[in-house]
Amino acid sequence: MIYFDNSSTTKPLQEVAESFQTVSEQYYGNTSSAHQFGLDAEKLLRKSSQQAGQLLGVGEDEIIFTSGGTEGNNLAIKGVALAYQNRGKHVITTAIEHPSVLESVRSLEALGFEVTVLPVGESGVLDVDAVSDALREDTILVSVMHVNNELGTIQPIKAIGQLLKNRAHTFFHVDMVQSFGKIDLSLNDCSVDLATISGHKIHGIKGTGLLFARKGIRLFPLFHGGGQQNDRRSGTENLGGIVSLVKAMRVMTEQKMHHPDHFRNLNHLMRIELESMDHVIINTMNDQADHILNFSIPHFKPEVVLHALEKRNIFVSTKSACASKKEEESPVLKAIGLPRNRTTSSIRVSFSYQNTEGEVELFTRALKKVIQELNKVMG
Amino acid sequence: MIYFDNSSTTKPLQEVAESFQTVSEQYYGNTSSAHQFGLDAEKLLRKSSQQAGQLLGVGEDEIIFTSGGTEGNNLAIKGVALAYQNRGKHVITTAIEHPSVLESVRSLEALGFEVTVLPVGESGVLDVDAVSDALREDTILVSVMHVNNELGTIQPIKAIGQLLKNRAHTFFHVDMVQSFGKIDLSLNDCSVDLATISGHKIHGIKGTGLLFARKGIRLFPLFHGGGQQNDRRSGTENLGGIVSLVKAMRVMTEQKMHHPDHFRNLNHLMRIELESMDHVIINTMNDQADHILNFSIPHFKPEVVLHALEKRNIFVSTKSACASKKEEESPVLKAIGLPRNRTTSSIRVSFSYQNTEGEVELFTRALKKVIQELNKVMG
Ligand SMILES: Cc1ncc(COP(=O)(O)O)c(C=O)c1O
Ligand SMILES: Cc1ncc(COP(=O)(O)O)c(C=O)c1O
Repeated sequence: MIYFDNSSTTKPLQEVAESFQTVSEQYYGNTSSAHQFGLDAEKLLRKSSQQAGQLLGVGEDEIIFTSGGTEGNNLAIKGVALAYQNRGKHVITTAIEHPSVLESVRSLEALGFEVTVLPVGESGVLDVDAVSDALREDTILVSVMHVNNELGTIQPIKAIGQLLKNRAHTFFHVDMVQSFGKIDLSLNDCSVDLATISGHKIHGIKGTGLLFARKGIRLFPLFHGGGQQNDRRSGTENLGGIVSLVKAMRVMTEQKMHHPDHFRNLNHLMRIELESMDHVIINTMNDQADHILNFSIPHFKPEVVLHALEKRNIFVSTKSACASKKEEESPVLKAIGLPRNRTTSSIRVSFSYQNTEGEVELFTRALKKVIQELNKVMG
Repeated sequence: MIYFDNSSTTKPLQEVAESFQTVSEQYYGNTSSAHQFGLDAEKLLRKSSQQAGQLLGVGEDEIIFTSGGTEGNNLAIKGVALAYQNRGKHVITTAIEHPSVLESVRSLEALGFEVTVLPVGESGVLDVDAVSDALREDTILVSVMHVNNELGTIQPIKAIGQLLKNRAHTFFHVDMVQSFGKIDLSLNDCSVDLATISGHKIHGIKGTGLLFARKGIRLFPLFHGGGQQNDRRSGTENLGGIVSLVKAMRVMTEQKMHHPDHFRNLNHLMRIELESMDHVIINTMNDQADHILNFSIPHFKPEVVLHALEKRNIFVSTKSACASKKEEESPVLKAIGLPRNRTTSSIRVSFSYQNTEGEVELFTRALKKVIQELNKVMG
């Protein structure tokens, strides 16, 4: 099997699954309990926060463990908006964000917020001047993703951070779900105030994730209750999930260090092949994230291509998993101004550290065959 | 080891842990993906909803899988309140709810809602007439727990359901976190509109739970995003967690059927012993939930008793885990009007199906010794 759909979700690593299991079995105490079981769990929770903080270069008290990327994005956006609405009710984001950002931001409109959704040009990369122009006195939050999930475009986080650095009233949230462990981002150098990570995109288990929220930032909680996680996210902590998330983060960080060229190599190899194929138009520009490669085959319905590849035991995506059931056109490709025959025919390949050059070769050979066959059928 | 703290959290059953593991490994596809991996995951999700619905006697489309009891309670309360605020902005709850209900309800005050927190008498049981009296034209939600987590009191859900049955404008939410699998409750007979269940209280794994929300009820989502779970709870589903939750629900339901007197037997045995002990005052009235038994030893600090028992490898709770770090007095015992020397000295024992009469005997013998020893120390 060749699994090239790692931006949809990844297979949990063996060691990650094992650490979940061990903790669930041996540290099942409630961190809020006063007896040794509770204290042991509490200690392990604390250690996990420290380790997550170290991996991100931030403090342990700046880590909030969540149930995934969607929760993290919602907590960052609604949490800041509701906590700081007295300061201002204006939020800026981009047209190519994941729905968990876009819809969170839009949900604020019902609560009297004004929202600016910045377009991106055909490069798929946000223009920093556009952010600058959109900033207002009452802007309390700017939310921009690091790497786009459909196209793999890298957004200018550092430049936006610079821009916002001296505006103490405007917080900066970055959705790092698609970038963590693949593309470096220093939360401190980039003056990021809030950042989202999701476990199942980095070979962790589903139902895990974290939100980094810089010290001092107040959040209106999505979950009120027993006051866990410094009152920012109540509810009995999923300690097994937390420990396993940190494990996945560590493994990804190590992989990145040991195989810095892994994704670039796969990407280049695939690009060369795709460029030589009839009917294939690559949508992802050069010099973007190497682990995501998006292309269109305007002649064919993407589902047909997907299923033909699937028969050969190769798994790719027609668009981002979250959008796949909703509308025909890829909203992100549409946002960068591609014509309809390309927005409705896109295929996304997304790599993990487990994928190999051999798999890329098998894939491109298979794709050529598929295109030939479909061409025949179509006459 | 004698673990009598099952209302704080439970040890995951072997078969539950295994089903989590199997699904995580073999069905790691994203339910939103269009390829076979995604479709297989989607099918399993659907089957889980059906099974959960069957166990609760409701429809599959009335099940929303969550990350736990706190999320379920917050989603029910904030979800209804924000979706129906045009109808009215009044919410009723009780003084003995879990913080995830009480604080959720209180958080609505900042959004212009009026909240009635009904007191309970010294019986610890809510007076249905009090609910009736508190109802207003603009009451959109009544939230009452089934079994109280500290005292084990059973609330008159059926009678409240009757009262609300013909008020189409007032939804009825029940926190079933402490009762599911132990005390029967027919969601249909009791006209319950929303009900919360938490996985880790029923030998499931942490980070799992569900909210039942009757067909047709709109919820303002806590998580906006990709539109999963009929747009009511976006985010990639934790399929392993979901399957394992349903497994835990099924096992609990079977245990209940096969051992209908299990908790009553343990409870009676322990009551008889406790009643005979000097210094011990039982706080939980007769004819309440048998799996929770709360008593005070006004002479001693409860932490001292807890740690003395812990040395004998027996684990109990001083108050509900969630409240244990916050204040000295148990808010629930205070709410039923107990004097301070009892509200600050309470011990909670909570049973699971795994506990035995032999353990109860060992416990009571140990407690007697502990009291004797402490009496000596105190002089
Ligand atoms: C960029 C981005 N943000 C957020 C999410 C949501 O994360 P999760 O699936 O963990 O809820 C995704 C996943 O599709 C994503 O690609
Ligand atoms: C009655 C009640 N409701 C809700 C909760 C919260 O559930 P969870 O710990 O799964 O967030 C608890 C747990 O302490 C509880 O006892």
